[in-house]
Amino acid sequence: MSSSQPSGRLGILLPGLGAVGSTLIAGVLAARNGLGSPIGSLSQLGRVDPGDGQQRPIRELVDLASLDDIVFGGWDPITPNALEAARTSGVLGAEHLDALSGELEGIVPMDAVFDRAWVSRLDGVRVKSTGGHWASAEALIDDIARFHAEHAVDRVVMVWCGSTEAFSEPCEIHDNLAAFEAALRADDPRVAPSQIYAYAALQSDVPVANGSPNLMLDLPCMVELAESRGVPIAGRDFKTGQTLMKTILAPGLRARMLGIRGWYSTNILGNRDGYVLDDPANFRTKELSKLGVLESILEPDVHPDLYGELDHVVRINYYPPRGDDKEGWDNIDIFGWLGYPMQIKVDFLCRDSILAAPIALDLALFLDLAHRNGSAGVQDWLGFYLKAPQTADDSAPDHDLFHQLGALEAQLLEWRVG
Amino acid sequence: MSSSQPSGRLGILLPGLGAVGSTLIAGVLAARNGLGSPIGSLSQLGRVDPGDGQQRPIRELVDLASLDDIVFGGWDPITPNALEAARTSGVLGAEHLDALSGELEGIVPMDAVFDRAWVSRLDGVRVKSTGGHWASAEALIDDIARFHAEHAVDRVVMVWCGSTEAFSEPCEIHDNLAAFEAALRADDPRVAPSQIYAYAALQSDVPVANGSPNLMLDLPCMVELAESRGVPIAGRDFKTGQTLMKTILAPGLRARMLGIRGWYSTNILGNRDGYVLDDPANFRTKELSKLGVLESILEPDVHPDLYGELDHVVRINYYPPRGDDKEGWDNIDIFGWLGYPMQIKVDFLCRDSILAAPIALDLALFLDLAHRNGSAGVQDWLGFYLKAPQTADDSAPDHDLFHQLGALEAQLLEWRVG
Amino acid sequence: MSSSQPSGRLGILLPGLGAVGSTLIAGVLAARNGLGSPIGSLSQLGRVDPGDGQQRPIRELVDLASLDDIVFGGWDPITPNALEAARTSGVLGAEHLDALSGELEGIVPMDAVFDRAWVSRLDGVRVKSTGGHWASAEALIDDIARFHAEHAVDRVVMVWCGSTEAFSEPCEIHDNLAAFEAALRADDPRVAPSQIYAYAALQSDVPVANGSPNLMLDLPCMVELAESRGVPIAGRDFKTGQTLMKTILAPGLRARMLGIRGWYSTNILGNRDGYVLDDPANFRTKELSKLGVLESILEPDVHPDLYGELDHVVRINYYPPRGDDKEGWDNIDIFGWLGYPMQIKVDFLCRDSILAAPIALDLALFLDLAHRNGSAGVQDWLGFYLKAPQTADDSAPDHDLFHQLGALEAQLLEWRVG
Amino acid sequence: MSSSQPSGRLGILLPGLGAVGSTLIAGVLAARNGLGSPIGSLSQLGRVDPGDGQQRPIRELVDLASLDDIVFGGWDPITPNALEAARTSGVLGAEHLDALSGELEGIVPMDAVFDRAWVSRLDGVRVKSTGGHWASAEALIDDIARFHAEHAVDRVVMVWCGSTEAFSEPCEIHDNLAAFEAALRADDPRVAPSQIYAYAALQSDVPVANGSPNLMLDLPCMVELAESRGVPIAGRDFKTGQTLMKTILAPGLRARMLGIRGWYSTNILGNRDGYVLDDPANFRTKELSKLGVLESILEPDVHPDLYGELDHVVRINYYPPRGDDKEGWDNIDIFGWLGYPMQIKVDFLCRDSILAAPIALDLALFLDLAHRNGSAGVQDWLGFYLKAPQTADDSAPDHDLFHQLGALEAQLLEWRVG
Repeated sequence: MSSSQPSGRLGILLPGLGAVGSTLIAGVLAARNGLGSPIGSLSQLGRVDPGDGQQRPIRELVDLASLDDIVFGGWDPITPNALEAARTSGVLGAEHLDALSGELEGIVPMDAVFDRAWVSRLDGVRVKSTGGHWASAEALIDDIARFHAEHAVDRVVMVWCGSTEAFSEPCEIHDNLAAFEAALRADDPRVAPSQIYAYAALQSDVPVANGSPNLMLDLPCMVELAESRGVPIAGRDFKTGQTLMKTILAPGLRARMLGIRGWYSTNILGNRDGYVLDDPANFRTKELSKLGVLESILEPDVHPDLYGELDHVVRINYYPPRGDDKEGWDNIDIFGWLGYPMQIKVDFLCRDSILAAPIALDLALFLDLAHRNGSAGVQDWLGFYLKAPQTADDSAPDHDLFHQLGALEAQLLEWRVG
Repeated sequence: MSSSQPSGRLGILLPGLGAVGSTLIAGVLAARNGLGSPIGSLSQLGRVDPGDGQQRPIRELVDLASLDDIVFGGWDPITPNALEAARTSGVLGAEHLDALSGELEGIVPMDAVFDRAWVSRLDGVRVKSTGGHWASAEALIDDIARFHAEHAVDRVVMVWCGSTEAFSEPCEIHDNLAAFEAALRADDPRVAPSQIYAYAALQSDVPVANGSPNLMLDLPCMVELAESRGVPIAGRDFKTGQTLMKTILAPGLRARMLGIRGWYSTNILGNRDGYVLDDPANFRTKELSKLGVLESILEPDVHPDLYGELDHVVRINYYPPRGDDKEGWDNIDIFGWLGYPMQIKVDFLCRDSILAAPIALDLALFLDLAHRNGSAGVQDWLGFYLKAPQTADDSAPDHDLFHQLGALEAQLLEWRVG
Repeated sequence: MSSSQPSGRLGILLPGLGAVGSTLIAGVLAARNGLGSPIGSLSQLGRVDPGDGQQRPIRELVDLASLDDIVFGGWDPITPNALEAARTSGVLGAEHLDALSGELEGIVPMDAVFDRAWVSRLDGVRVKSTGGHWASAEALIDDIARFHAEHAVDRVVMVWCGSTEAFSEPCEIHDNLAAFEAALRADDPRVAPSQIYAYAALQSDVPVANGSPNLMLDLPCMVELAESRGVPIAGRDFKTGQTLMKTILAPGLRARMLGIRGWYSTNILGNRDGYVLDDPANFRTKELSKLGVLESILEPDVHPDLYGELDHVVRINYYPPRGDDKEGWDNIDIFGWLGYPMQIKVDFLCRDSILAAPIALDLALFLDLAHRNGSAGVQDWLGFYLKAPQTADDSAPDHDLFHQLGALEAQLLEWRVG
Repeated sequence: MSSSQPSGRLGILLPGLGAVGSTLIAGVLAARNGLGSPIGSLSQLGRVDPGDGQQRPIRELVDLASLDDIVFGGWDPITPNALEAARTSGVLGAEHLDALSGELEGIVPMDAVFDRAWVSRLDGVRVKSTGGHWASAEALIDDIARFHAEHAVDRVVMVWCGSTEAFSEPCEIHDNLAAFEAALRADDPRVAPSQIYAYAALQSDVPVANGSPNLMLDLPCMVELAESRGVPIAGRDFKTGQTLMKTILAPGLRARMLGIRGWYSTNILGNRDGYVLDDPANFRTKELSKLGVLESILEPDVHPDLYGELDHVVRINYYPPRGDDKEGWDNIDIFGWLGYPMQIKVDFLCRDSILAAPIALDLALFLDLAHRNGSAGVQDWLGFYLKAPQTADDSAPDHDLFHQLGALEAQLLEWRVG
């Protein structure tokens, strides 16, 4: 139950200041100004029963940074400032943005490390021209140091809120830190931009969360770096709409020993994220992140008769009329007593950024908490928030939302101060 | 970990041999003959991890009666035998019924204690004409004794699978056993038929489960009788389609601290159950059973901002084209970050009896297990299976399916033998 | 092709200035000011092919009053002015209301003829205290005359946009004009407020449309009065969401000779209309209006094998989270080749007033057109807009939307001037 | 009103004896034996009002071949006989197949002209080894002649019920009959198998309908051949589930001048058709067939404000759990008064072959009728049944189901005899 009391300000740096990033920032400012509630955030609204039957607010139970002490910054290849980002994405209405326009306009992203080879559908204009990966990493490290000084923050965390990059697989350049640094110096094309951000942050002792499916943190080199510097990390891919629903429903169906023959999921979305994912290379990255959840929950090897023949199909379609609103339609073919078939359809009319913003906030605050409590490397207990949780021992993650909540609560109780 | 090893045969007596009862019986016979799997039954397919990371089949963990040792019987005011009941209800296809027709035809229900005042939409033809409640109870006690002897069973449990009765509330005749027996003798019209069955069973040392929303067991007089005779009971109302889904989804939404503004549920069903529930008096009984679940899961007093203004509406409509297939359509109005609204629609094309049969089986086997383990009175740990679980101390039940599963597993581990 | 050219201004008087009325008014003002388009209105956007293969705008084909020449007025028991009504109903956003707030605030309804016996859920505060039906009718006639003079309008039409009244059936007081006037004088409780409005309008030579299911115009006394004074009428009940969909789908299924076994429709809505309809007496009025459409389209007597056993169920539920947004969920059980069953589900997330406003506008403009063309009494050709169209010869109406469109176009071509 | 009375037997030859073909055959046999009704077939159940207000059965109005006079035959690369095909496809239940098993087993398809280059997912085993296109065509012509003789039929029609071929576009080999025959002789790889069937049929004076999206009949060479020999043709692609629904809904939305911003359609199906369409080359053929319908109905050039920005997305996914049951889920984003958005979701749980079989029957009978009435070449009036109707003058087809029904009825009345 040891903890270093948080004092001073916490910087949250966002690579990617688009729909999610601007919604996160505007929401925290709104909450600070009494203009809205950070609904969906456990760090702000959640309660845990420490064992005495009395649910205690998480904010009182552990030493979290206060919303009042947060300072936002970031990088973006397109957006001039957080107000523009918020307006372009169309997530929040005038009733929220108007009152915050001055503050939001003042949050100007730094030029981004960006490469169209990894996100062919976007065209970056506010991009560093550094001449190679190594120089890019150094530029980011400088950015972080400057942000630290200029804003007089005590601590910084990074949360990736940028686009999904093209699919890639770990290779020898990721095997250890030395190999990765050699690849940086050699300007190896297999180094993704998100990896440069991760490297720069960890070298700056900044904890990192990865809200995208990118291959950013679950790499031996990054784990080595995080552990050696005593910095916590968590990834990957915010668990928002359809996958959230899946990790709620699947445990329930299994609890009742109902069989599942098929699960068909289609998504329609019209924001920048959808446009990027309409590119097959980028969709591949996302698809793999989404497909894994059922197997770990249902354990077809334990129950082959119930889950051994499950056809799981996931589709994402770019559909501009939806804007940032995302719609996930699921068809689930289940079977019961003597094998008789039944069907469940779930239509989730959700809002991507509205669901992602509180996750980004919680990850930032909980990583900062972990850092102060001396927990380094992969934080398994934050899997609750992620579509494809990285695990410290590389074992298969538990995707069951209720198991994940239990693990989160158990960790918080360990660091309990209140 | 004390337990009396089950030896000999177990009688399962069903008041009500309609769709659920005949599906239960045919399914057990089918499983016995290798013609189908009792999917949805934890007692047959479930596994529990006793703490060593190795999931063990529940059937091996505790001393359950074997499907091979079950003998079925029951009462019904309409059906001549289990084959006719199965054919009329149309739940199971010829591929299952044909091979079992002989066995099913041989299961002939006894004449029922029935009163149209409680189920105005049904017209009973196979009904006892006993002249009063007391005589009815005595006739049922005789029926149970005769069944015991004729079928050479060692133990008997009763599972109510009959219709929903008209709405009624507990009154002074239910205050204690003496008052109830006086009401039986006085032929008090406030005594419901299901209560006479419960009384007869408990007086015969037969554990009772109540699969309907009827006011059958959650009465001081029945608890007193069960406890005094050392007999376990469990009620009420099998948690099948829509409510099952609700107790899966609601904990998930709460886990993520998402607010809920409204939950609208409509059901369409076309079987005898739907026809009975189309009568407002009977629907009232069901509605109350269904409405309670959200409050206990969401705790609006703990989270008034998230769940304090929830409009919860439940409707059931008799719609003959559906037959025994039941369709539950839910609309859930949720809200997230800064209060932005989102919607979830769930369309559950289910089969009522297919979902209910494994529940009835599990309740029968687990009540028998409890009885042999000396557990008397209300079995809180069976709330997993019930829409409105009765609790031993009359406290509000926990409707969270995952909490309920935990309680069930914990109890089984306590009686562990394997 | 005779027509009197419309000159001067057209008054549109609305009994009931709630969600529909204020949306209609704000929309016409917005269109006049170039702030929005009157989408959904055939009179403004529709085109008809006069036979030469060239689709001509209806506005050029016949002599319609221009939006610029419309003056709005009305009566309401609750709302102080159109701006308040629009804000309370929450249909239109600030981006539309702000620019029109001055104009809307200036539209102040006159005190209403109102009786809680007919709408028990509402409490009128701006109500005439006239002392009896006859005096109420005279007061309304005076209101109309005063409106005529004060606003210098040339012609007036009335469109009922008020609440659904309690269910009632025609009786001897409606048999003819003399009987109805006697009932007015006798203050007969069977005279509904909407009937007093109809009487007052027709006596003032004002055409009337009835947007509700009320028994307002389809009465022998009203037809007699309309015909004797040469005034056109059209009722009843705006065909907006679910019924609109039904009259589109049913003709399509019939066109393909697909059978229908059942049609289950549920509505959830949260506005004043929903609150009123939650009262069984008022729902009864609405239910009858909604149930009729399938029979006339499907003709079960002509195709008994396909439509002879159709179970048609319609439910409306008051559900406050929806506000003015209305959701209609339909399940349709169809069957094809050899009787094999299939299902169609339609979830219509609509907006009641957004769909109703253009209907109200079209009915007003087309009734004015009919009046100028000398067409008196029931206007069958306006059935396109109505859930339960009144017919001139009391025959069953044709609910097929495509037949209705054909009839509308044919009538317009008859009065063609352009 | 001239017509040659049908006498003698009508042969219906099906290239492709899979789910649709076997369902068609079994259904006609069932209807002949009084075991089921050919629901969905206008030729059997439809009625038309010849103008006197009395709806007359189409069967009496025009001289159609009787079901009793039909003889079935066909070609298939896989199926040994119609019974096997029916059992494999799983469309019809034992209650229908058992009584017809003898008859169905007797219908043995001839070896097929098949080429995996066009349907890479299937592996043909009952395939002609003829050595080139020209020989294949001659073999088919011989097959037809032999069928004629062996079964003593008077007339023959062909209905393509085979798989979707890989996407291809018309080229110079299709420009005229001479070019096509040269390509046949040259064994040109651009000649699709379906085109060889069409050629063989037309050369045999056999009318042809194309139930797939293949490029089979809408080619100048085929039109030339059909016209020169006086043979009617109709294609392409049976209008069954989702597209049928689209051509019902879109006219209805347009009738009410409601705008449409997007239409997203996804299909899941698990039969052989779905497996073939899972190949992108084959899906492309289907997609184009499905995408065209909205534009012709909505006329975005006439109503740019309402339909000018419509995003139309169509997806098909192979999903084995569905079997022959097909599910089409549509999301339609519409807008009304002042542009306010609304949504419609349609979930169509249909059965592909159940919907297609009556279409195949009607096309066969109506083509035979047209042939006897001397109508050669493209039959525009049969567009009612087709997703991408071929037109005689190559103009854009009218996809509005109600216009199509009108055209069909008008043509039938022209050939009226009863």
